[in-house]
Amino acid sequence: MKLYDLEVSGNCYKVRLFAALTGIKLELIPVDFMAGEHKQEPVIGINPLGQLPVLCDGEVKLWDSQAILVYLAGQYADESWFPKEPIAQAEVMQWLSTAANEIQHGPGAARLVDKFGFELDKATALATADRILPILETQLAQHDWLALDRPTIADCAVMPYVGISHEGGVSLESYPNIRAWIDRIKGLPGFITMPAL
Amino acid sequence: MKLYDLEVSGNCYKVRLFAALTGIKLELIPVDFMAGEHKQEPVIGINPLGQLPVLCDGEVKLWDSQAILVYLAGQYADESWFPKEPIAQAEVMQWLSTAANEIQHGPGAARLVDKFGFELDKATALATADRILPILETQLAQHDWLALDRPTIADCAVMPYVGISHEGGVSLESYPNIRAWIDRIKGLPGFITMPAL
Repeated sequence: MKLYDLEVSGNCYKVRLFAALTGIKLELIPVDFMAGEHKQEPVIGINPLGQLPVLCDGEVKLWDSQAILVYLAGQYADESWFPKEPIAQAEVMQWLSTAANEIQHGPGAARLVDKFGFELDKATALATADRILPILETQLAQHDWLALDRPTIADCAVMPYVGISHEGGVSLESYPNIRAWIDRIKGLPGFITMPAL
Repeated sequence: MKLYDLEVSGNCYKVRLFAALTGIKLELIPVDFMAGEHKQEPVIGINPLGQLPVLCDGEVKLWDSQAILVYLAGQYADESWFPKEPIAQAEVMQWLSTAANEIQHGPGAARLVDKFGFELDKATALATADRILPILETQLAQHDWLALDRPTIADCAVMPYVGISHEGGVSLESYPNIRAWIDRIKGLPGFITMPAL
């Protein structure tokens, strides 16, 4: 199973992290971003947005980190990570949407500006971070994990761009429960890290 | 089952549309946005972001339109709308992420600026629309539906903000396959519309 991968991408790290926590073996194919390989085959043929990660598992070809988490959890992992029961699935899904929406466009976008020079609106990104981080903080003051009171793909989807948010000028100083949650994830068996985390 | 609802919200319409297509009965509770009711109980107690829709089904309380679609499909609808099989679920999930990410922050955000005066970066929103709409167009040139070659919650999640994108200054003129897909959705038994669609 091949993951077309970029080491500094939080979206790629979501998948690497989940695979490590669940013992799923991935063949990592590093993509040379500076050489524009993400805009060439085979990546562009799987994800026309030309964004990483993309996954090839035999005939199964997927883009979008959240979709890849859903696939890997359903196909290869213990059902605890993404149950098939609709209430539980929806509870996890709330945070997968948050990952694609406020986390990506908040701390994720701020980091793209500061670290990679993307021409995005930094003020909007910081405002989005300021809106979503207190909500994570409140959730994590009451629960050890984002959903279902146990580790799920929700934690794998949300944590990466929160954990490296300092690279976009976002501080977690006033969010002790978020920091404790990141430490809990770091303590899970099989945990692997990424640069700056 | 109560849906706290705003008629002009594409996110609320995603849920109203899916419920109509599948015969799920919703009690619509209109929320007075101008009076700030979305920042008060009971909405704020369910969704601390204070965004609509939120759903109350007995003890089940959910925020995020995509999560609500996942719940309603899994709990009350024919499995064809969101199968439990991981490959199919991941294929649908790719488009649920697209709805929360590029569609929300592209045509959705452009409309928030033009129609409701939100202070968002319109140029970034239009650029995001210009990036995602050609990808939808290509997908829909090859397939009648976004995922699984049949109607799924992916279509319900993505179509609304695309179908009313003219309210944000985004034209579908050069996207005939997107327009044909919207017409196909309009032709589904039980279809209901929303303002401007």
